[in-house]
Amino acid sequence: MTQPALCLYELAGADPARLFSPYCWRARYALAAKGLEAETVPWRFVQKDAIAPHGAEKVPVLLHAGRAVRESWDIAVYLEETFPDRPSLFGGAPGKDLARFVNAWADAVVLAGIARLIVADIVAVLDPGDVAYFRTSREARFGMTLEQVQADRDVAVKGFRQALHPLRMILRDQPFLCGERPMHADAIAFGPFQWARCTSPFRLLAPDDPIEAWRQRMLDLHGGMARAVPAFD
Amino acid sequence: MTQPALCLYELAGADPARLFSPYCWRARYALAAKGLEAETVPWRFVQKDAIAPHGAEKVPVLLHAGRAVRESWDIAVYLEETFPDRPSLFGGAPGKDLARFVNAWADAVVLAGIARLIVADIVAVLDPGDVAYFRTSREARFGMTLEQVQADRDVAVKGFRQALHPLRMILRDQPFLCGERPMHADAIAFGPFQWARCTSPFRLLAPDDPIEAWRQRMLDLHGGMARAVPAFD
Repeated sequence: MTQPALCLYELAGADPARLFSPYCWRARYALAAKGLEAETVPWRFVQKDAIAPHGAEKVPVLLHAGRAVRESWDIAVYLEETFPDRPSLFGGAPGKDLARFVNAWADAVVLAGIARLIVADIVAVLDPGDVAYFRTSREARFGMTLEQVQADRDVAVKGFRQALHPLRMILRDQPFLCGERPMHADAIAFGPFQWARCTSPFRLLAPDDPIEAWRQRMLDLHGGMARAVPAFD
Repeated sequence: MTQPALCLYELAGADPARLFSPYCWRARYALAAKGLEAETVPWRFVQKDAIAPHGAEKVPVLLHAGRAVRESWDIAVYLEETFPDRPSLFGGAPGKDLARFVNAWADAVVLAGIARLIVADIVAVLDPGDVAYFRTSREARFGMTLEQVQADRDVAVKGFRQALHPLRMILRDQPFLCGERPMHADAIAFGPFQWARCTSPFRLLAPDDPIEAWRQRMLDLHGGMARAVPAFD
C-alpha cells in the first residue's frame, strides 16, 4: 500500500520556499514525527479563496483522504488518531492534555512575546501582495505602527527572556521539554522560534541560554528540515 | 500488611491546623491521590533544627521507610515510583515530563504572582515566633517592606489574572488541566491558590473565571481535605 496522499497549505513569503508560519511548523513537525510526507502548497495571506472551499480562513490546512483539517493543534490530534501505529506525538492522554497547556502557554508567552519583537521585520520577507493586508491587520491589532511595536525591543527582549523561565528550568536539566526525546510539545514550543528565524535577524536568545541549545537540537530533527528553508540564522 | 508509616513535615501558622505552604499542599495531594495517609508534623520557619537531621532546610519533608524525601516535586516522583500499583500521579513518562513544566510555570507565574499580592497578609497568620524571620527574609528578597510589595494589588491583580491565561484556556474546555479527571499537574497548579486562601482574604480570581470553578473542584477532592483547614474563603 502506498502512503496516503497528504497535502499541507503553508504560509510562504515572497520566496515560496520561505515557509514561516509558527502554526504550520507545528503541523510539519507533527507530520515528520509520524514519518509522513506531505506536499506543501505555498499560500499567502490574501489567498483566502484558495482555502475557503476547505472551510478555512488561515493556514495550516491539511488535506487527507477527502478531509480538510484546520488548526495546528487539531492537525496533530488528527494525525495521532489516524496513524496510531506510528510514533506517538503525545505518549497517551495525560501527555496530550498537558501538551495542550504547553500550546496555550507557547501562544500566550512565546508567540505573542516574539511578535512584539519582530513584527515589523516580517514585512520585508512577505510577498508584495501580502504587505498591505499584513500591515493593516496587524497595526489595527496593536493600535500602532509595526515599527512602533518593536521600537523598544532591545529592552523588551529582556522581559521576553524572563518570561521563558519555565521552559529554561526544564531544558537546564534535560535535552527536550518531553525528556530525553522530543515529542509534539517540543514542536509546539519551537514553532514560534522557527517563525522568528525565518523572518527576522533579531537575536531572541542569549548564546548560553539552555533554550538556545534546545532550539539548535530542534533544528537538527528530521534531517534538519527546518534549517533547509530561507532564514536569518 | 498494614500501611507503611508516612510522616509529612508541613508548614503551619499560629494555629497548627492552618497548614498553608503551597509546596506542602502539592505533597498532600500527591499522598491523597495515592490513597496514602501521612501523619502531619506541624513545622514553623524557625524550627530549622527539627528538619536538619533529615538534610532539609525547608518543608515539605516526607519520612518513609527510613528515608527522608525533600521538595514537593521529588516527593511526588518518589510516591509514584514507590507505589506503582496505586493510581498514577502522572500517567506515564510524557505526562510526568510535562507536569514538571507545569511545576516550573506554576512557580514562576502563579506562586510568584500571588506572593506579590498577599505577602503582607501572611504575617497575621504566622506563629509569633516566625514573624521576625518571615518579614526580614522576605523584605530582603523583595527589597521593600511587605506592605509596599502588595500596596498596588488592586491594579496588579489584573496582570496576574492575565498571566493565568494559558491555564484558563484549558479550563474553559475541560474540568481539569489533565482532562476529565485531575492528576498531579492539577495539584501542582492548585497549591499556590490554597496557600493564598489560607493566608489572605484578598480575592485573586473573578467569580466567573473558569479557573475559579476549577479551584472549587480542586477543593472538593479527597473528601474536601483542603477545605478542612482554617482559611479565608
